[in-house]
Amino acid sequence: MSFKEKGLLVVLSGPSGVGKGTVCRALRERGTQLNYSISATTRKPREGEINGVHYFFKTREQFQKMIEQEKLLEWAEYVGNCYGTPVDYVHKMIESGQDVILEIEVQGALQVKKKFPEALFIFLAPPNLNELKNRIVGRGTETAELIESRMSVAKSEMELMQNYNYVVENDQVLKACDRIEAIVLAEHCRVDRLIEKYMNKEGVDGK
Amino acid sequence: MSFKEKGLLVVLSGPSGVGKGTVCRALRERGTQLNYSISATTRKPREGEINGVHYFFKTREQFQKMIEQEKLLEWAEYVGNCYGTPVDYVHKMIESGQDVILEIEVQGALQVKKKFPEALFIFLAPPNLNELKNRIVGRGTETAELIESRMSVAKSEMELMQNYNYVVENDQVLKACDRIEAIVLAEHCRVDRLIEKYMNKEGVDGK
Repeated sequence: MSFKEKGLLVVLSGPSGVGKGTVCRALRERGTQLNYSISATTRKPREGEINGVHYFFKTREQFQKMIEQEKLLEWAEYVGNCYGTPVDYVHKMIESGQDVILEIEVQGALQVKKKFPEALFIFLAPPNLNELKNRIVGRGTETAELIESRMSVAKSEMELMQNYNYVVENDQVLKACDRIEAIVLAEHCRVDRLIEKYMNKEGVDGK
Repeated sequence: MSFKEKGLLVVLSGPSGVGKGTVCRALRERGTQLNYSISATTRKPREGEINGVHYFFKTREQFQKMIEQEKLLEWAEYVGNCYGTPVDYVHKMIESGQDVILEIEVQGALQVKKKFPEALFIFLAPPNLNELKNRIVGRGTETAELIESRMSVAKSEMELMQNYNYVVENDQVLKACDRIEAIVLAEHCRVDRLIEKYMNKEGVDGK
């Protein structure tokens, strides 16, 4: 019997402003063997963004159709635009034994957990909430009121950590990347993922 | 509230001849932050083995006393000699936040699991059983009959894999070490080990 290990779906999420995008970019620059899911969005392309590379750009109607046909693993509306994860790409990669990483907001992660409970849920956490506040303020794009509102959201988002498998503190980006890579490697060694491989092997039943 | 993370007890086990000792030595040479438990044994020292470094060499009477006083986390008789893990060292290290690795036979690992279910059980597996046979034969110290008997034991030991958390294939020693290090790092990121840290933190409840 040949055993084919499936790939992992890795969901990287955490409070808004924690640095999910930065960590994902750093992982990509390292050449980690993780495939990045490409989101569908109704947002207009920003300068330099290419359809099918950075996003699949969709009209509202197209996006609505994807929802109805259950072609999205999760989706959310954010600042007036819809974002979602096309399910086909994820399934194709996983079946072929490759890992896929999704970088999404916490609400999206909860949706994925319902549809894909066997995914690996990693919560990227700020070293503390003051640090998170500094990052949000540091962007320089938010009003004081919006910052307070975001902090309040971030606090409730932290409570969602209990739905995840792992928590990775984003104290230093490279350390966070090390931890994420270790988690993925470790998960590939879990007995429940591999037992079939060994129990089916010629040697074990004495043949 | 200050949160103090405990160390992990890592139990590395697997069929006789799989290379547990070699992998442990390689981990040690790398300077991994794992503390090595020193076993007690009634076996006579082999050339170069030092009391208190490689083993605590004990008489039968001394060993029996350790069993009676529950000073051993596990023990086993193997080819006429007794081997066991002194419990005091393990507890001391773990309470102080340091990780400890035990390299033991599969029967001992099952005993540890009963007494210490929160330990991390890693099964070191041969790429296949023929490979394992080659290694046992390669030692050149065993008769053909003993080799067959060992292989039969190894096959039944493989079945015990299901009691473990992780399986690491010892295809290449350094790769096996990478996987073990990744597993330990990943386990330190598990939400169930860390949730208390975040939920007790000032920031999260808004203070």
